[in-house]
Amino acid sequence: MKDPIYKLVELTGTSTTSIEDAVEKAIKRASKTLKHLCWFQIVETRGNIEKGRVHHWQVTLKIGFMVEE
Amino acid sequence: MKDPIYKLVELTGTSTTSIEDAVEKAIKRASKTLKHLCWFQIVETRGNIEKGRVHHWQVTLKIGFMVEE
Amino acid sequence: MKDPIYKLVELTGTSTTSIEDAVEKAIKRASKTLKHLCWFQIVETRGNIEKGRVHHWQVTLKIGFMVEE
Amino acid sequence: MKDPIYKLVELTGTSTTSIEDAVEKAIKRASKTLKHLCWFQIVETRGNIEKGRVHHWQVTLKIGFMVEE
Amino acid sequence: MKDPIYKLVELTGTSTTSIEDAVEKAIKRASKTLKHLCWFQIVETRGNIEKGRVHHWQVTLKIGFMVEE
Amino acid sequence: MKDPIYKLVELTGTSTTSIEDAVEKAIKRASKTLKHLCWFQIVETRGNIEKGRVHHWQVTLKIGFMVEE
Amino acid sequence: MKDPIYKLVELTGTSTTSIEDAVEKAIKRASKTLKHLCWFQIVETRGNIEKGRVHHWQVTLKIGFMVEE
Amino acid sequence: MKDPIYKLVELTGTSTTSIEDAVEKAIKRASKTLKHLCWFQIVETRGNIEKGRVHHWQVTLKIGFMVEE
Amino acid sequence: MKDPIYKLVELTGTSTTSIEDAVEKAIKRASKTLKHLCWFQIVETRGNIEKGRVHHWQVTLKIGFMVEE
Amino acid sequence: MKDPIYKLVELTGTSTTSIEDAVEKAIKRASKTLKHLCWFQIVETRGNIEKGRVHHWQVTLKIGFMVEE
Amino acid sequence: MKDPIYKLVELTGTSTTSIEDAVEKAIKRASKTLKHLCWFQIVETRGNIEKGRVHHWQVTLKIGFMVEE
Amino acid sequence: MKDPIYKLVELTGTSTTSIEDAVEKAIKRASKTLKHLCWFQIVETRGNIEKGRVHHWQVTLKIGFMVEE
Repeated sequence: MKDPIYKLVELTGTSTTSIEDAVEKAIKRASKTLKHLCWFQIVETRGNIEKGRVHHWQVTLKIGFMVEE
Repeated sequence: MKDPIYKLVELTGTSTTSIEDAVEKAIKRASKTLKHLCWFQIVETRGNIEKGRVHHWQVTLKIGFMVEE
Repeated sequence: MKDPIYKLVELTGTSTTSIEDAVEKAIKRASKTLKHLCWFQIVETRGNIEKGRVHHWQVTLKIGFMVEE
Repeated sequence: MKDPIYKLVELTGTSTTSIEDAVEKAIKRASKTLKHLCWFQIVETRGNIEKGRVHHWQVTLKIGFMVEE
Repeated sequence: MKDPIYKLVELTGTSTTSIEDAVEKAIKRASKTLKHLCWFQIVETRGNIEKGRVHHWQVTLKIGFMVEE
Repeated sequence: MKDPIYKLVELTGTSTTSIEDAVEKAIKRASKTLKHLCWFQIVETRGNIEKGRVHHWQVTLKIGFMVEE
Repeated sequence: MKDPIYKLVELTGTSTTSIEDAVEKAIKRASKTLKHLCWFQIVETRGNIEKGRVHHWQVTLKIGFMVEE
Repeated sequence: MKDPIYKLVELTGTSTTSIEDAVEKAIKRASKTLKHLCWFQIVETRGNIEKGRVHHWQVTLKIGFMVEE
Repeated sequence: MKDPIYKLVELTGTSTTSIEDAVEKAIKRASKTLKHLCWFQIVETRGNIEKGRVHHWQVTLKIGFMVEE
Repeated sequence: MKDPIYKLVELTGTSTTSIEDAVEKAIKRASKTLKHLCWFQIVETRGNIEKGRVHHWQVTLKIGFMVEE
Repeated sequence: MKDPIYKLVELTGTSTTSIEDAVEKAIKRASKTLKHLCWFQIVETRGNIEKGRVHHWQVTLKIGFMVEE
Repeated sequence: MKDPIYKLVELTGTSTTSIEDAVEKAIKRASKTLKHLCWFQIVETRGNIEKGRVHHWQVTLKIGFMVEE
């Protein structure tokens, strides 16, 4: 495709272990229904707290994927 | 679901009466086609003017909802 | 007018009752001296406090109006 | 005091009815333990959703108050 | 529709010739699958470089369209 | 003038052809009523869409001009 | 006036000596043509350089003043 | 509590190992003196460098906790 | 302390003479009740105007201090 | 190179004709002294005005290039 | 040096494993050609995707180092 | 030069006396190794604290200079 066009979707992945894992989970989920995933960019990193510890890392990211003609 | 994943969609609700009503209308519309709506965050508040008064409050918001596995 | 041109002015409206009322008051005042008001966008919402309550809602907004040739 | 000094605290007020009510509740709570509250500025407006409607408006604001010498 | 509701989608259009062409290509693509496109706003302008020249202008924009009841 | 003072005004120029043309039209209009225009800075680039194409490029810019003593 | 309304204008003051002096010069100039100046907020601090030294401090500020009914 | 109120405090946690560890350390410290910690959001990620390596990851975060009536 | 933890507080210092003096006054006041002050960062510079001159420089800053274990 | 590293430099290109031309000129100049230019992102678009027209488009951009081991 | 001066450079480090590793790689590379590295701050976290997984974490950071007289 | 090109470098100047002095020191240092310095813009104003007083004002600025063909 000479001039590709991309769409961006915004997801929040969560993980009890790390920021990276939350990102991977969101991308894995997106790849179930979307093809041609190309890149992501982190928008925000938050989380909830239970018993003085991080319970879930909540990472919001935008994922760009090429749309077909 | 142990590590939930959320998607965010961006809508602009409009209302002739108030900011809150514009938000409620956007959420009500989103709930027709999306399940598991969880939260929203206001992105921008604008409006158009007619005869020296606000005609439509235009409130852009992001709505987060849990996506199913 | 084929290619309209707009000017934006920045005002702070105040009200003892609500954000919407502060916006309406600013627009009403602008319409006294400006014609062709088209849209507004809220820039900031602040207020002063007296006796543990909001005294004045202070809403800063930009108002766009079409300028004549 | 010739050159007053202010401190800012950040609170999130919540309300089932309106943005204004969430702000008022946060200020009312702050006034229980802090004196000389002067002004506030809204930082973020969010909320949670239940059954296709806003359940709680969650308004984060900074409140400025004069500190005593 | 008395109080219209809009949805915003985020796309990246690309072009070897200009920023305007990248925007037009993204809008043209969006209009294949979405009805009632109303407005756009440019979010970011980037590009990749080959042999000391811009190869593709990459313009990310949000497109607003009216959703039907 | 040893220490010049400038004023900034905010305009939105529109054009059916390009971003540059929208900027030029806004500056040309400003120069009808203001003297000593010095510089501009683009604040936002938007537009409306008709029939799957950009109808009007809407470019908001600030224009700085020197004010006389 | 029960619910005052304010207008904001944006100026760039310049000075060869300090940021404070550039602000004062802009306010002094504004007070020649505007009444009821109330507050200012610094938007940007820049300057030009000559012979390895600051030549002019250029401070852009918004000035708020009360508009009459 | 029907309409809970939250306070946000801003902390910088540090760690020689990871961003996540710096966050956990800040939350752990906060939980010593504050009750009802609910969520956090990362504001900034910095660090100092020694001998060509990160010495301390310095993560600034806001922590929200419910205040009692 | 191997991995120090810092807290940030936000203050507004005021001065009739300069930005620097407003900052110093806020820090001096903070040092009365807080120990181990380490750094500050200016958040906003505003002021009020009387008789065409700056009356009070109002500088909002964040101050970071090390919290004890 | 398995894990490439990039450096970003910030340039302002100028042109009397268009935004795109100003970008191209900056990239062309950068390519004289830097190898492996990969991408750019526009940071700001300004310009100076002469006789009621844009004299120079001034486009500030960041250019990323791969650094060699 | 009584009043040290620092320069900031902007780099993008990449890693297939983690954000922290991408940062370390960028700092390690910078330390080959620059002396007196002092601190860094993360500007943006992105990455590319291959086969439904993060391929490279791409972390853009600013690195500050003391320049010699 | 018909269409000049500028490069921007980012420096942090420090001073025990004032913001202006920190800026001047950074510019003076830059002028030792760079020619054709044109302008600067302040990015951030911070400082460290010792004994309840500002020890060093730390002002980060971008300096633009014309690059030769």
